[in-house]
Amino acid sequence: MDAFPYRTWSKLVARVMRGGDTTLMSHGDPLGYLRLRKLIARHLYAFRSSFCEPEQILIVSSAQLALFLCATLLMNPDDSIWIEEPGYPHARLAFRFRSERMIPVPLDESGIDIEAGKALSAQPRVIYVTPTHQWPLGLTMSRHRKLALLEFAAEHGAWIMEDDYDGDLRFERGAYEALFGLDAQARVIHIGTFSETLAPRAQLAYLAVPVDLVGPFLAGREAMDDLPNPVLQAVLAEFIESGSYARHVYDMRALYQERHQLLRATIAHKLAGVLEAKAAPGGTFTTTLLTTQIDDVALAEAFLGHGYEAVPLSTTYAGHPRSRGLLLGHAVARPDQIRKGVDALGQTAASLLSLAPR
Amino acid sequence: MDAFPYRTWSKLVARVMRGGDTTLMSHGDPLGYLRLRKLIARHLYAFRSSFCEPEQILIVSSAQLALFLCATLLMNPDDSIWIEEPGYPHARLAFRFRSERMIPVPLDESGIDIEAGKALSAQPRVIYVTPTHQWPLGLTMSRHRKLALLEFAAEHGAWIMEDDYDGDLRFERGAYEALFGLDAQARVIHIGTFSETLAPRAQLAYLAVPVDLVGPFLAGREAMDDLPNPVLQAVLAEFIESGSYARHVYDMRALYQERHQLLRATIAHKLAGVLEAKAAPGGTFTTTLLTTQIDDVALAEAFLGHGYEAVPLSTTYAGHPRSRGLLLGHAVARPDQIRKGVDALGQTAASLLSLAPR
Repeated sequence: MDAFPYRTWSKLVARVMRGGDTTLMSHGDPLGYLRLRKLIARHLYAFRSSFCEPEQILIVSSAQLALFLCATLLMNPDDSIWIEEPGYPHARLAFRFRSERMIPVPLDESGIDIEAGKALSAQPRVIYVTPTHQWPLGLTMSRHRKLALLEFAAEHGAWIMEDDYDGDLRFERGAYEALFGLDAQARVIHIGTFSETLAPRAQLAYLAVPVDLVGPFLAGREAMDDLPNPVLQAVLAEFIESGSYARHVYDMRALYQERHQLLRATIAHKLAGVLEAKAAPGGTFTTTLLTTQIDDVALAEAFLGHGYEAVPLSTTYAGHPRSRGLLLGHAVARPDQIRKGVDALGQTAASLLSLAPR
Repeated sequence: MDAFPYRTWSKLVARVMRGGDTTLMSHGDPLGYLRLRKLIARHLYAFRSSFCEPEQILIVSSAQLALFLCATLLMNPDDSIWIEEPGYPHARLAFRFRSERMIPVPLDESGIDIEAGKALSAQPRVIYVTPTHQWPLGLTMSRHRKLALLEFAAEHGAWIMEDDYDGDLRFERGAYEALFGLDAQARVIHIGTFSETLAPRAQLAYLAVPVDLVGPFLAGREAMDDLPNPVLQAVLAEFIESGSYARHVYDMRALYQERHQLLRATIAHKLAGVLEAKAAPGGTFTTTLLTTQIDDVALAEAFLGHGYEAVPLSTTYAGHPRSRGLLLGHAVARPDQIRKGVDALGQTAASLLSLAPR
């Protein structure tokens, strides 16, 4: 919270509101504020190796709406959709409203396991993935797997939903190749959001879609929701264009990487034999795996008693959980809080272990 | 635009952002910011004669999302929905995604014609109405008709969607009885919005729903969309609680009434025999009816050539248009612009009349 340049943001809000730009008064361009869409297209080109026209970008009020929109438009209720197992439960909430055939597909170290998926459901209509930073396991999909997935989608006429929920928070410098950019067959819908980097100030998201889908997606968006607040869209455009967004993201990445590394090191030092923290490629959370027989739901509940929130890994499975652990947020924790939190987690685990039957 | 207290608003934005309220950082209460919901409940009680608990209110990002949510949750694809004819095209966009049986029901001077509706489809699952200020005809539903509609809905197990899109802009002082408040059988879903009064600063909407529907509506909202920007929710709560919202609405009502009356008088004076302007009970637009044989779509197109936007009444019908006219926005037009606009409209109509075959 402290790290956010709120003075800059507030000044931009005041400036945009004083400006009395009449284009703000109408709903303007139905795809979203054109200047913002141009900046997003430039951003995708520079940081995701993805080329698209501003006319392929739709601004929406949230990533959740983008997920729901995709589920509604890309499939019929009897079509099957591959989802990652474990995976993002809020995505399943959206898909459940549309599909009776959600197929949880296991992951290996390279990403979603295509062969395993084929064995479960050979003709998915939609494939939902989080390739930048798999939620919740924290993997990055390999380039090889991305190409294989694109080939599979093109062969089978499947759509790939690429949820790039925290792509701007990758620790590694330099460009990253999004599925959307690698795709030569126009099978990928890319979902990006500013919620991870700017929340709670700008909960906005966007979709980049193949040219042929712009019309249906616009019709769907207009049926479901108004465009997000135009002041917010204009402020965000100013924030990006002035370079403040890039600076903020740069600062956040450095801060989060430092905190992630401290959390990992502290866990390795103090909780060896109980919990193993995986290296994250970026983002706001650290994935940890339990190496003892503690129930992760009980652990999360007891940990909450100490004032700390954590997502039990077992609850992120659509089917039977195959691993247990906790997702620990490192974004908003200062170093002393991280150390205290790990101590509290150690005590919590110890008390549960002493209660456990032998 | 000039009339908006933007200094007050900007100060509130800065204050809320500086406050660093940690409840803003999380998604907080899943129904929406509790303080805002309490204030909305109080507002509904004071100005719509409607009692409900804050726990019956859901904050959503737009009225359009509220319409889509209702369409998705209240009916199955083979259920029929009564809509007003003529009516709000954006509502039809939402309903079309869900229902194959949209039934356009004609209106009389008291509101939707229940007998006509019964003759068209005796068992509607949902009835969509704009009772405060019918869009586009500008009528207010009579108390007698409201009670009859509630009785019909209770008898037939139908849901009433009450779209109160500009209820805060009624010209008449004092409390207004919403269907939601008159309803003793828990059949009404009330949709309110701040878009008409605060756009483009706060495009937020809310639903007030019967107690039994809170769970399903929350599940639906969580599948479809995140909560709106928490800063915006908090700023709006401050804006309402401080009395700024009431003052702003009070000022807007006076201003819009003045402009509506000037527009009506100018049309009566200058366009008699061409166009008749109806008295509006409130809101941002004036409904006019053509009294000559001009095509309203051609008239709107030619009028746009003069730089004025107007909605042709005939395009607001789902079926065959039964009246022609223009919806003229009076909200953002200053007195001199109103006079110039009416002159331009007169010239436009005259040139079309001289072109018309005799």
